[in-house]
Amino acid sequence: MATMHDNQLLDNGQGVIDPDTYFLRNNPPSNLAEFEAKTSEFVQYHKERNTPVVLITSGGTIVPLENQTVRFIDNFSAGTRGSVSAEKFLENGYAVIFMHRQFSLQPYSRHYTHSTNCFLDYMTLTEDGKIEVDAKYAAAMATTLAKYQKARSNNMLLLQDFVTLSDYLFKLKSGTRIMATLGRSAMYYLAAAVSDFFIPTEKMAEHKIQSRDGALTLTLDQVPKFLKPLVSVWASNGLIVSFKLETDEKLLVPKARQALEKYGHQIVVGNMLTTRKKTVTFITQDSERIVSLSQEELDNDVEIESKIISELLKYHRAWISHGTLEGQ
Amino acid sequence: MATMHDNQLLDNGQGVIDPDTYFLRNNPPSNLAEFEAKTSEFVQYHKERNTPVVLITSGGTIVPLENQTVRFIDNFSAGTRGSVSAEKFLENGYAVIFMHRQFSLQPYSRHYTHSTNCFLDYMTLTEDGKIEVDAKYAAAMATTLAKYQKARSNNMLLLQDFVTLSDYLFKLKSGTRIMATLGRSAMYYLAAAVSDFFIPTEKMAEHKIQSRDGALTLTLDQVPKFLKPLVSVWASNGLIVSFKLETDEKLLVPKARQALEKYGHQIVVGNMLTTRKKTVTFITQDSERIVSLSQEELDNDVEIESKIISELLKYHRAWISHGTLEGQ
Repeated sequence: MATMHDNQLLDNGQGVIDPDTYFLRNNPPSNLAEFEAKTSEFVQYHKERNTPVVLITSGGTIVPLENQTVRFIDNFSAGTRGSVSAEKFLENGYAVIFMHRQFSLQPYSRHYTHSTNCFLDYMTLTEDGKIEVDAKYAAAMATTLAKYQKARSNNMLLLQDFVTLSDYLFKLKSGTRIMATLGRSAMYYLAAAVSDFFIPTEKMAEHKIQSRDGALTLTLDQVPKFLKPLVSVWASNGLIVSFKLETDEKLLVPKARQALEKYGHQIVVGNMLTTRKKTVTFITQDSERIVSLSQEELDNDVEIESKIISELLKYHRAWISHGTLEGQ
Repeated sequence: MATMHDNQLLDNGQGVIDPDTYFLRNNPPSNLAEFEAKTSEFVQYHKERNTPVVLITSGGTIVPLENQTVRFIDNFSAGTRGSVSAEKFLENGYAVIFMHRQFSLQPYSRHYTHSTNCFLDYMTLTEDGKIEVDAKYAAAMATTLAKYQKARSNNMLLLQDFVTLSDYLFKLKSGTRIMATLGRSAMYYLAAAVSDFFIPTEKMAEHKIQSRDGALTLTLDQVPKFLKPLVSVWASNGLIVSFKLETDEKLLVPKARQALEKYGHQIVVGNMLTTRKKTVTFITQDSERIVSLSQEELDNDVEIESKIISELLKYHRAWISHGTLEGQ
């Protein structure tokens, strides 16, 4: 018995809805106004100082399966790529808007939040009952804290979050439209693992789906291709970098090229699920470039994001100068 | 167009598979042996000291939708009920095995891990660059840390985790079978939000499901009713408390009673999604008892788990004394 198959297009010729329709049919997140206010302030601050700004999206979006949400579909994404990249961009003088799945990895804190230690395992009590960071961790944590505090006090790092696909899409649209004023100085680093399928509100069960004898069938609609309006309308002249994660090697470059042709943006960073921490491929309209960590680099705990950002900075410099990827 | 419906039983009369078949068809988690060793040691330690032991399960299980997992179905569950309850059990002299969804809320650390502050927001640097806990948080954190460290140093708290439904079921079976030696001194506090539906390995796609025009249909099998063997075989004579979360008030008590009759355990703690932090209902074969926080208690930040555990301790004392819930 086949368990998964793609349905035919509906008889009326409708397949996937367009992004405008999505935004009309769904409610914006309750904190959208606050998101827009903080983002506008941050963008304006850096426009005045001519600092390049990157919007990084990180972590997975969820799609609820019921209106009173008990169950949802999620995308595997710890947020490693996004959070490590944020640190590298900051090191290189970029202002960073870090739009991440709530409770996923964040720059700097990432070293401590998702380990075998729980929060309190990093702490200890002195003899007179005062709390301090355990000496085992204190020096390294102080160094990391200093970098984090510097990024915050220099207003170089804006942290924003999302949970559902809907939160994400509304915030992505608002964020990119606000950043359009930066022209080519803006970069979009779309590392989030965005849901491909969802259940539209009008088709969703009100109450928790009940277990009954037999199987459960869920029919999900395809998520609108929002990258299209992002490239052609919202993000104006910025440099747009999307990501492709594959498990079948044969599909990686073809699908990346397909995306570039379909959406009209500039760069796809492709990686395979099992080797994404060691190797990535930069795919542009005209080129494919594989970047990997050498054994020596792996032994020295170099993170591949250093190399990713290094490459992207070359592309972005060319982009800012003359609006193409050439000359790097 | 209907989007969700329950299929008929298959022609051969097979509906949901039984738990034994589940365990035969699925691989145990790679760390099961370590889980069993630690659990056995903990249980033995407390058996010798006649300490009551509670196994708390907390957080949601996931079911993968592909073999090389990119997408999965998850159950909304921060782990509040389980983690707060663990603290109350510990306060009352119980040894606690806290089997939780990896990265969900844990006793004590829960006050710090899922807030608007990220990890490093709790820290500060002294003038000579040393790290310390920010004075704003230090006193309260020291108190919490002291409780946590006491529980650990007295070997009263064993932390174990799971991610997938499969991890959870194998560990639940092993854990309850190991605890059976405690007889009626064991309590099982099954607060985890366990998947009701899953895709069996043999029916799962190998690679990441591809987006194509049109909808995606997923057919999920019902998860075997493992509460049955837990009550009748694995957990022997312990006091078994299961939870029921509902969004439709009409269904809460009927479904709780249905579970008690179907599985033969002793107590269901029922709650409604929207009021679960203020009100719970204890349902036994013969009784229903609603327990709520008063306005004064709410104003004084009393947590409902204090009242839940207080009730359960009465039931458990009676259970330990004479094997029934009477006499409390």
